[in-house]
Amino acid sequence: MSSPAHHVAYFPVEDLPTEEVDRQEELYGGLADAVRALVDLALDVDAPPVVLASAQASLEAVTASLRVAQTDGPLGVRHNGRGRTWSWGNAVIGPRNATAPPLVVERPDPSGPCTASVVLGPAHQDEPGVLHPGAAAKMLDHLMGVVAADGRRLTMTGRLTLTHHRPTPLGPVSLAGWISGEEGSKVFVHAELSDADGVSVEADVVFVIPRWAREASTDAG
Amino acid sequence: MSSPAHHVAYFPVEDLPTEEVDRQEELYGGLADAVRALVDLALDVDAPPVVLASAQASLEAVTASLRVAQTDGPLGVRHNGRGRTWSWGNAVIGPRNATAPPLVVERPDPSGPCTASVVLGPAHQDEPGVLHPGAAAKMLDHLMGVVAADGRRLTMTGRLTLTHHRPTPLGPVSLAGWISGEEGSKVFVHAELSDADGVSVEADVVFVIPRWAREASTDAG
Repeated sequence: MSSPAHHVAYFPVEDLPTEEVDRQEELYGGLADAVRALVDLALDVDAPPVVLASAQASLEAVTASLRVAQTDGPLGVRHNGRGRTWSWGNAVIGPRNATAPPLVVERPDPSGPCTASVVLGPAHQDEPGVLHPGAAAKMLDHLMGVVAADGRRLTMTGRLTLTHHRPTPLGPVSLAGWISGEEGSKVFVHAELSDADGVSVEADVVFVIPRWAREASTDAG
Repeated sequence: MSSPAHHVAYFPVEDLPTEEVDRQEELYGGLADAVRALVDLALDVDAPPVVLASAQASLEAVTASLRVAQTDGPLGVRHNGRGRTWSWGNAVIGPRNATAPPLVVERPDPSGPCTASVVLGPAHQDEPGVLHPGAAAKMLDHLMGVVAADGRRLTMTGRLTLTHHRPTPLGPVSLAGWISGEEGSKVFVHAELSDADGVSVEADVVFVIPRWAREASTDAG
């Protein structure tokens, strides 16, 4: 994600060199990846009770060893004022959040759509092999928020409309979203979620730029 | 969740005594709970690299020990034909799914709304302390699906409209949903998500009863 100067108005700065941010992301991201593998196993392992109990005891021991170092520190968007932003805890894109796929939102062409590609496993299921429609909503909502913010302003989800054309199978999916219109404090965004057979879900969101953010943006020139 | 005879047409039967279902749910649910605790810790632990590396190695050892017993078995809705249904892997309600809150959808009054109460932690965050709007969409979508199915028919999410009145803080929230209308193969459902300050998100969904399910339902009398 890019980090234009406008972000300064909204997101906390942490005075960390980019290399240090990268190092911490790898360290804590590795721990979260290990948890993510366990999320999948907890879903589909089939083992004798003694094996499961032993695994559970081992996990609880790790929890106990880490609990002493647990913080209540917030994990929202941060930036270091040197072009590096990070959002480690986010429920959709956070590399430290084992419930997040995690989605990586990109913008290959600066004037084109925001896109993301991800392989979705059983943690995101509804019926067997089928993506939970709510999980599709969650990812689309996030991608569209990135589109609306456009790397330069704060926007809040107003109204989201989602149309499911058919169930989406688990596996590789791609998302794409773009601004379809702007009107005063409103930003209209359209997005699609596709699998190998084409678009399965379409979404439209009306985002709102809060008054205080509009004023801050005007102040900043 | 109740399990009227109509479910027989749609969901696989497993010939398990209810006590055995309960026993397995406790066993595998316990493992998932242990993973859920680690999801939170991976988000907010602040420890020296050597501690994190040691924790990660321990988790990877557990993963290796369980991997040999991993199945690709589907984990959708099951019932035993004796009044017990279960949906262990579901992304919103599955007790074996560590990414699920998990939500417990209830219907205290058989003629009243479906409801759920849950305390949401940092795994469901957007900005610090704020519920990810997509996570709200995911939970509402699921609750509304339960409302639409009404314990007696198969329904698919058609169009979902969600209005965020304001950001929802993390912490305790409650959901309520009810059928607001029916028209041919369409079922209209309304739902709300509330925190201590009242309703923060409203949702409307048009569900569709697929033709084949309508025909099966008619056949079953």
